[in-house]
Amino acid sequence: MTYCVGVLLEQGMVFASDSRTNAGLDNVSKFCKMTVFERKGDRVIVLLSSGNLAGTQAVISLLRQRGESEDDSCNLWRASTMFDVVGCAAGVMRAVEQRDAAHLQKSDVSFNASLIVGGQVRGEPMRLFRIYAEGNFIEVGEHEPFLQTGEVKYGKPILDRVIKPGTSLPDAIKCVLVSFDSTMRSNISVGMPIDLLCLERDALEVKMRRRFRAHDPYFDALSEAWSEGTREVFSRLPELRWP
Amino acid sequence: MTYCVGVLLEQGMVFASDSRTNAGLDNVSKFCKMTVFERKGDRVIVLLSSGNLAGTQAVISLLRQRGESEDDSCNLWRASTMFDVVGCAAGVMRAVEQRDAAHLQKSDVSFNASLIVGGQVRGEPMRLFRIYAEGNFIEVGEHEPFLQTGEVKYGKPILDRVIKPGTSLPDAIKCVLVSFDSTMRSNISVGMPIDLLCLERDALEVKMRRRFRAHDPYFDALSEAWSEGTREVFSRLPELRWP
Repeated sequence: MTYCVGVLLEQGMVFASDSRTNAGLDNVSKFCKMTVFERKGDRVIVLLSSGNLAGTQAVISLLRQRGESEDDSCNLWRASTMFDVVGCAAGVMRAVEQRDAAHLQKSDVSFNASLIVGGQVRGEPMRLFRIYAEGNFIEVGEHEPFLQTGEVKYGKPILDRVIKPGTSLPDAIKCVLVSFDSTMRSNISVGMPIDLLCLERDALEVKMRRRFRAHDPYFDALSEAWSEGTREVFSRLPELRWP
Repeated sequence: MTYCVGVLLEQGMVFASDSRTNAGLDNVSKFCKMTVFERKGDRVIVLLSSGNLAGTQAVISLLRQRGESEDDSCNLWRASTMFDVVGCAAGVMRAVEQRDAAHLQKSDVSFNASLIVGGQVRGEPMRLFRIYAEGNFIEVGEHEPFLQTGEVKYGKPILDRVIKPGTSLPDAIKCVLVSFDSTMRSNISVGMPIDLLCLERDALEVKMRRRFRAHDPYFDALSEAWSEGTREVFSRLPELRWP
């Protein structure tokens, strides 16, 4: 399993991904699921990948290779909008699926890759998308300005409560990290390190990226303070009166 | 889908269940999923049922019928321990499964009933169990003094953070209701009314039972206060410092 979150706010964007991959409980590894295409002052594109690791790695490698080619047809460095970026990534996903799916099916494995793709190209707005395994994709909406992939349920309620378009980047970062903490407590197939990236609107440059490993002092303090804070909130909430 | 929670605390127990049943999105109904066997001063037994409605209704009806018979072998009114109570309920579940499963299978429907069973028999401790569809069952542990059935993921993190054996009944009630609110926001197959029952240790009598319907003023105020409270907590949590 995997857990990835992308958030689009008035102030900018927050991306986070866990690093655990597994082929069964007895075969657990760590792989970074966050890929960044950055050319300062021109574009920052962030991809968070979940699903079959061979599939998502092939997608990322192909996107990198195409970016180095002279071909303009699917090149993340030359795409003029984020819509073209996500269309290009989706096309590559479909190509890998076409190549692999029949072979995977022989072992009853499905090609289940899924990507969160977001960022900003100069002169364009920030945009955030999620590509499904089938290569179709959705863009984030204003009512729920975040997208998740993987083990989404444990961490969704806190995002629902806190994340609004006007939420500040520091608050959104805390909320996303608590959402990861809640998820990791309940699903051991989601695990550290957590990669976090925060992108200010119109910065067109990654100034804030951080990797949280197990026992990270800030992460542990945040988790503890959140648990204490919520218990305090409960003690202050109005009590139910019995007739 | 369904959402049911049972909590066992030092002060007593809290039970809650939603009321939505559906056979597809176009066929939604309300049924109470909470059943109480109460004889004041002697015993209170609470059952929360999830899964196939025909199956769980048959189980409850059979338990009631057997309770009215002279037979001692599986009679909730005569069982001398909660362990015997849960064994009796599990046996009835298996009998119904035996009767129905083959017929359901013809339509590719599985017998997926599941019960949370808890309460207290005079002279015995309070105990809380969950019966699986197969009729085997588990008892709650001290590390996680609650049990859930149905759509459990959305509402679990808040229970994990707040519910400890020493949590007060009023705080546990608020926490369980927030857990329901979080679940209902994300899964429309979990819905009001919510039945809530709170049982004080050694009271052997139900003094607190309440049904929350849509737009219940207390429930709505609690939900709003919780959302506000959590946003406040986030604003007070330590901010991440970037190097």
